[in-house]
Amino acid sequence: MKILLIGAHGTIGSAVAKELGPRHEVIKIGRSSGDLHVDISDSASIRKLFEQTGKFDALVCAAGNVTFAPLADMSEKDFALGLQDKLMGQVNLVLIGREYANDGASFTLTSGILNRDPILAGASASLVNGAIDSFVKAAAIELPHGLRVNSVSPNVLVEAMGSYAPYFRGFKPVPAADVALAYAKSVEGRQTGQTYQVG
Amino acid sequence: MKILLIGAHGTIGSAVAKELGPRHEVIKIGRSSGDLHVDISDSASIRKLFEQTGKFDALVCAAGNVTFAPLADMSEKDFALGLQDKLMGQVNLVLIGREYANDGASFTLTSGILNRDPILAGASASLVNGAIDSFVKAAAIELPHGLRVNSVSPNVLVEAMGSYAPYFRGFKPVPAADVALAYAKSVEGRQTGQTYQVG
Repeated sequence: MKILLIGAHGTIGSAVAKELGPRHEVIKIGRSSGDLHVDISDSASIRKLFEQTGKFDALVCAAGNVTFAPLADMSEKDFALGLQDKLMGQVNLVLIGREYANDGASFTLTSGILNRDPILAGASASLVNGAIDSFVKAAAIELPHGLRVNSVSPNVLVEAMGSYAPYFRGFKPVPAADVALAYAKSVEGRQTGQTYQVG
Repeated sequence: MKILLIGAHGTIGSAVAKELGPRHEVIKIGRSSGDLHVDISDSASIRKLFEQTGKFDALVCAAGNVTFAPLADMSEKDFALGLQDKLMGQVNLVLIGREYANDGASFTLTSGILNRDPILAGASASLVNGAIDSFVKAAAIELPHGLRVNSVSPNVLVEAMGSYAPYFRGFKPVPAADVALAYAKSVEGRQTGQTYQVG
């Protein structure tokens, strides 16, 4: 399969590349690193990416930014990044990418544990993750040509605990390699409309 | 209690007014009808509303617009209404309203069944409903002064089946009066961070 991997150089993306690379053609895409570049918060940048990649069999997005801040300090504008980047960035990868997807291609988006198990300062992340999981469930029943869409919802990563531990006390972190398996299940399996929870 | 009821003249809002009116002071608010007016998609309009209402004990929002359209016809812009109106409109009622809320006051938002049980043409509604249910779960753990926030997630209404039936085949509709009970549970109970599913 020809797989577009967005966020290829992040902790999850690197693990996904390691999992899928031996079996597939993985095109590594980042905001400023990798074979090709994209800013997912900009639909023109997304369209330009697909014009460069051409047709593909799977798209994995392991990228997306949200604002982490205490709710007491948050106003409408602090939610805008998450809506435009992690949420609509990933939705737009599906909306625009479907034009370039081969029949039966899959889209695998990334949400995260916080809509199931919230933390302080995580309201925007929770909101966005819930939106993503709900979007894939709904979009799956409308995609034509056997196209599929799933999300992976990981717990905090072992590899991220160096900096994240104070925010995730009591969470049992998961290795990125375990999270990568969920992306393989989405890409190489046949399910659609699923959220694969890891940890 | 002094209760602000937004969307007071809609099918759900009318039922909530009937349920809570005999026991509380209910201020009926609508976009263009009611005692006071607000456009929830506009944070300036929300702030103006609270300047008129002053302090309150409960806010119920039974308003919010999203675009219903086949996914095949949807682009980024078709998701904007739901994000700005039903989603961030309700989030902003909490973010701005908390400044005017008495200690222990509650916010009750409205999501809906489509993130649990999607239908054709409902991708934006599903996304928004999932975001709302996730937001209340996360925001609840950060609100100060005993403030509470819940959502009510109703099935399609008996009263709406005249026009909605073709889109909701197989759904068992619920009477608006039953949905109104969930708002009473949120307002008059003490739970927070909950999504009350009705039907």
